[in-house]
Amino acid sequence: MSLDPDFRHGCVELIHGGGGRAMRRLIDALFLQAFDNPLLRAGDDQACFQVAPGRMVMTTDSHVISPLFFPGGDIGALAVHGTVNDVCMAGAVPLYLSAAFILEEGFPLSDLRRIVLSMAEAAREAGVAIVTGDTKVVERGKGDGVFITTTGVGRLPENVSCSVARVAIGDRILVSGCLGDHGVAILSQRENLEFEADLRSDSQSLHDLVATMIAVDPGLHCMRDPTRGGLAATLNEIAQQAQVGMRLRENAIPVRQEVRAACEFLGLDPLYIANEGKLIAFCAPEQADALLQAMRSHPKGRDAAIIGEVIEDPRCFVRLRTGFGGERVVDWRSGDPLPRIC
Amino acid sequence: MSLDPDFRHGCVELIHGGGGRAMRRLIDALFLQAFDNPLLRAGDDQACFQVAPGRMVMTTDSHVISPLFFPGGDIGALAVHGTVNDVCMAGAVPLYLSAAFILEEGFPLSDLRRIVLSMAEAAREAGVAIVTGDTKVVERGKGDGVFITTTGVGRLPENVSCSVARVAIGDRILVSGCLGDHGVAILSQRENLEFEADLRSDSQSLHDLVATMIAVDPGLHCMRDPTRGGLAATLNEIAQQAQVGMRLRENAIPVRQEVRAACEFLGLDPLYIANEGKLIAFCAPEQADALLQAMRSHPKGRDAAIIGEVIEDPRCFVRLRTGFGGERVVDWRSGDPLPRIC
Repeated sequence: MSLDPDFRHGCVELIHGGGGRAMRRLIDALFLQAFDNPLLRAGDDQACFQVAPGRMVMTTDSHVISPLFFPGGDIGALAVHGTVNDVCMAGAVPLYLSAAFILEEGFPLSDLRRIVLSMAEAAREAGVAIVTGDTKVVERGKGDGVFITTTGVGRLPENVSCSVARVAIGDRILVSGCLGDHGVAILSQRENLEFEADLRSDSQSLHDLVATMIAVDPGLHCMRDPTRGGLAATLNEIAQQAQVGMRLRENAIPVRQEVRAACEFLGLDPLYIANEGKLIAFCAPEQADALLQAMRSHPKGRDAAIIGEVIEDPRCFVRLRTGFGGERVVDWRSGDPLPRIC
Repeated sequence: MSLDPDFRHGCVELIHGGGGRAMRRLIDALFLQAFDNPLLRAGDDQACFQVAPGRMVMTTDSHVISPLFFPGGDIGALAVHGTVNDVCMAGAVPLYLSAAFILEEGFPLSDLRRIVLSMAEAAREAGVAIVTGDTKVVERGKGDGVFITTTGVGRLPENVSCSVARVAIGDRILVSGCLGDHGVAILSQRENLEFEADLRSDSQSLHDLVATMIAVDPGLHCMRDPTRGGLAATLNEIAQQAQVGMRLRENAIPVRQEVRAACEFLGLDPLYIANEGKLIAFCAPEQADALLQAMRSHPKGRDAAIIGEVIEDPRCFVRLRTGFGGERVVDWRSGDPLPRIC
């Protein structure tokens, strides 16, 4: 067996995780080339970088999405977007990522390369460097192609402090765009459904949108990206943590017509569907209009909307005023879980 | 189904990774309680902490060891030790860890709790806080119980700069103790071998040993922990990166008698066996004796030894002077890979 990886016909083998020469060659030929940057090139088992005094944030996510490739993205880009966005939700500027791969024996090296190149591209777009990493290989049937865990660190500007602890009664609740695109794209691909409409994941990094928002309202109270469980789970979690209630206006919540139609067909509620390129923001009421305007001026916030407000409620309910004027409680989750959406 | 996790008879279910209330309750009842610290308690999707000006290091490792529980440790403690040690190998002081879990549907919650408590204990011992995390669940047969990816950040003292780039001709090579304990313990458990001797993993955090070493020789050139591929792979990798050769004295390399016997029985060479609580150090020749003495004064360096030196060699060979006075080249790896040793 040649130790040099064959990216056309080769597969991941156990020896690629063995710590020996085959692993070194895979790292050199694939990861170092794709992610190339001075910190990674130093070749140590850890990256070393200068930091300015102040506050940093750190966040991590494992990505186990199935299928690995989907309309609008793949696990590689998603692994960058997901962690970049979690750094940004603190109001921080993302700086560095680490990437740890768990590969299944037999996984095609051509697919791995495609995924790694997609990560590299996503990192470049978001202005972050992938500075350290790890590769493990598990036997056939003990994994599922590839799992990627990314961890991100970022710098928090001095006057910014976005946290669930700052959500307050009266806060306006904004979303940055249409909900449900990611989850519906994944599910329709999984179920092999062909809709007339083009359903694509919204997977993207929100670093630039967040920078625009922070510039207008550095006092922004809180941001979160509504991934697993969608808007409903995210708002319920925040309501519980902040010990508040929320009131939403159904008519104000942006959902693309195609997504709404697909959800109806699949028996799903778009409020519970995962997003990978949207955010929810909480701000003081007097900031809401300026913030909305700033978001709408950015391509990633074109469909932004004020969807409701934070109210007092000892039971921490998230209520929805429906299009027909009624009101219902939006619970954490209705129906079955949608596994491995991210 | 009750949403509260049943740690006596319950199992991981897909809904525990769904982003909804069941996931929240698992996180609250298990991870938050075990890892409890102010940063984690803030409840945001990222941890926020103050940093001093200077240099930081960042490192990541996925842990996929099989079996999950082994003599001398388990995947939880190992996931802390492995990443703490990679931070320390830069000469840095470890500060914070993130922990991302990929759980397989059906995995007993009692085992998960045991692993998480063991992580918490290992983190306490190493003086680091687990400040952020993630939980994903994959379907039965798409994972293997639990995989844990930890990422660590640490602060680098101003006058310290340990890197493979500083390895120089004439450097002395030291190891902190007996080699092969971890790999042999795992293999004998996997093969269901009963040796008379007590074979236990050496899995441990080296933060305190490293602090002792740095105090004596802040100019230390390079450190690495010889994990996958053992001493042989680690030294060959460094030789290649630094474009140097090395000469070792077989008689000087510490290996416990029981490990040597088990290796002979298993047909393995202890130089290729993984360690999880040992380090290799490169220092200037005039520092070697003082460094050795400092290491031996620490319980984790009791069996430390100077095992060789860095020499000029355009072919970057690692040579071993055998006990019989001959010399052989220690290649990256002999024989088969030993998968999933960490």
